[in-house]
Amino acid sequence: MLDSSLFIPTILGTPRKGRQSEYVARFLVEQIAARDRLYTELIDIKNIAIPTDDAGESIKDPQFSATIERADGLIIVVPEYNHGYPGLLKHVLDTCLKEYIHKPVGLCGVSSGSFGGTRVIQNLLPVMRELGLVTIFYDLNFANVQQLFDESGNLIDKSTYIRRMERFMDELVWMSKVLKYGRETVSK
Amino acid sequence: MLDSSLFIPTILGTPRKGRQSEYVARFLVEQIAARDRLYTELIDIKNIAIPTDDAGESIKDPQFSATIERADGLIIVVPEYNHGYPGLLKHVLDTCLKEYIHKPVGLCGVSSGSFGGTRVIQNLLPVMRELGLVTIFYDLNFANVQQLFDESGNLIDKSTYIRRMERFMDELVWMSKVLKYGRETVSK
Amino acid sequence: MLDSSLFIPTILGTPRKGRQSEYVARFLVEQIAARDRLYTELIDIKNIAIPTDDAGESIKDPQFSATIERADGLIIVVPEYNHGYPGLLKHVLDTCLKEYIHKPVGLCGVSSGSFGGTRVIQNLLPVMRELGLVTIFYDLNFANVQQLFDESGNLIDKSTYIRRMERFMDELVWMSKVLKYGRETVSK
Amino acid sequence: MLDSSLFIPTILGTPRKGRQSEYVARFLVEQIAARDRLYTELIDIKNIAIPTDDAGESIKDPQFSATIERADGLIIVVPEYNHGYPGLLKHVLDTCLKEYIHKPVGLCGVSSGSFGGTRVIQNLLPVMRELGLVTIFYDLNFANVQQLFDESGNLIDKSTYIRRMERFMDELVWMSKVLKYGRETVSK
Repeated sequence: MLDSSLFIPTILGTPRKGRQSEYVARFLVEQIAARDRLYTELIDIKNIAIPTDDAGESIKDPQFSATIERADGLIIVVPEYNHGYPGLLKHVLDTCLKEYIHKPVGLCGVSSGSFGGTRVIQNLLPVMRELGLVTIFYDLNFANVQQLFDESGNLIDKSTYIRRMERFMDELVWMSKVLKYGRETVSK
Repeated sequence: MLDSSLFIPTILGTPRKGRQSEYVARFLVEQIAARDRLYTELIDIKNIAIPTDDAGESIKDPQFSATIERADGLIIVVPEYNHGYPGLLKHVLDTCLKEYIHKPVGLCGVSSGSFGGTRVIQNLLPVMRELGLVTIFYDLNFANVQQLFDESGNLIDKSTYIRRMERFMDELVWMSKVLKYGRETVSK
Repeated sequence: MLDSSLFIPTILGTPRKGRQSEYVARFLVEQIAARDRLYTELIDIKNIAIPTDDAGESIKDPQFSATIERADGLIIVVPEYNHGYPGLLKHVLDTCLKEYIHKPVGLCGVSSGSFGGTRVIQNLLPVMRELGLVTIFYDLNFANVQQLFDESGNLIDKSTYIRRMERFMDELVWMSKVLKYGRETVSK
Repeated sequence: MLDSSLFIPTILGTPRKGRQSEYVARFLVEQIAARDRLYTELIDIKNIAIPTDDAGESIKDPQFSATIERADGLIIVVPEYNHGYPGLLKHVLDTCLKEYIHKPVGLCGVSSGSFGGTRVIQNLLPVMRELGLVTIFYDLNFANVQQLFDESGNLIDKSTYIRRMERFMDELVWMSKVLKYGRETVSK
């Protein structure tokens, strides 16, 4: 079982116009595609059509729900807005519940300042836990994001981020394998 | 100056259908109306029409902005969703910035469980601070909210909550007066 | 391997005189003793002699370190002091690091107020994560703790807490088994 | 009244041997001394002799209590230990309560990594609030602290930090004046 492929979708957590997080998410997706026995899919919260006159599980998007259900783990690319998470990311996350349980999540903070989204990551921790997700203890931090990508959206100092991402993905893959084993094999 | 009236709007922080927070907000508004030299206004985030294909100050609602600008303090009634804040509340809050600076906010947590929204309040603290708001150190907590109101939406055990609200409002009014003095009189 | 016993020590997280958390910890230890293939041990931070003129791993207590090293998971009984964790608990926790990695922890909040230590639990989450611990998503909450135990230190409404503890322990045992499998079997 | 001097002590929040935070605290104290109508005093938590077999207000150090009582505001220099605050800092802070009420605090995070203690600052926010302190919304962050001071403990890139500190102190002084006015003049 542990040899089978893992599916770890990458959530792009903001619809903001001019968002730099999109470059970050595309970089991650590209790098993950290069790994063995691992595949991802970009979930752009901009494209998830859910109502804004209600909240919670009653406005679930069937496709988003099915993707999370199928996932072995998650990556969330999240810019920091006023030291918190983007409202629309939370609005989308709150539409599922059972789909997340006992799955790992890796958080990737993005900020225009020099702290790489550390504060939005801290702000998300209690939410992740309540959703049943296990937040791994490596994060990715993209600080000063406006300076990181060239005009074509390519990461300038690629090697630094590839190295960091390797540690992050190693941990996320490890936790995905372990919790998958647990979900499939260990009864309560 | 300190004798003049204070304006402290009450934000109802969720558009969820069947929301119990609406009863809570209406109770607060009604109680505030009974106090001297203090007036409020219900800001229902359900009625603030802002786009969902962008985020931040560029999608500011002029009326919401003007109301916050005019305010001497804020009350936010906030249900707890997965130990965090409702996404649409944050989406709205993120559209202003300077409007909030050096104003106090009182948080009123609402939950269906027995902990009265303590966790959403903790989750909001860093966001309030970054917006420039000063969160007072009394909160209101409406736990087990489904059991608190009768069929007409009236609080059953009114006296308990009126007593708690008095302490909360005394502190919020005090801080509103003090910070108003600061904004108007003390230069940097 | 999954049939072997699990060792989950219970940390009593305050040295405060007159601490009610001691009754809580003793109740947990007693209940755990009644479960199959599971054993615990009370670690009273009052009894861990570490210096106060330094901090961190350099002042490690060898016995505490060895116990955590041997553990398959942890329970921390933690009273809420000013919405945060007791300083001496943190002082002790900070003396280990590798000993915690990839082990689950269940948090048990204790408070004299009616919110059962929810705030200290939220405050501990980022610390637990950075230590490499996985905080399970059920908590135990002992609210109004002065009213919960009789003069002999016995829980008055035992059945309620036994029921809650069962869910909590089921989850903690599940996660302990799963992460133990991971540590022993799944390579990075 | 607003022309009178303000007293804002600087708390050095760790007893760790080899602590770099001491250089940071000394830099702050030196800079504050150069400002008009403002004085400070270094409170080194290493020198506060309080018992470790108890916790809370019953083990108050009379001198620490008197200093906080007399203060118009506080600065806390705090290194980040496992994304949380040093235990002994909290142990000391928990010995006072009324002394803090309605006073502002400025937080100065120190870390060996590149995020400047942002995480310990977030972790302290709920505690500061519960103590009755108002955390201002500028912080000071000393990242990569081992590289910031020369062998004599002098800040190498002084001008950068002086500039940041000015903004921080302007805000802290403003809030100190405003809350002092409130404590002395505005009744509830």
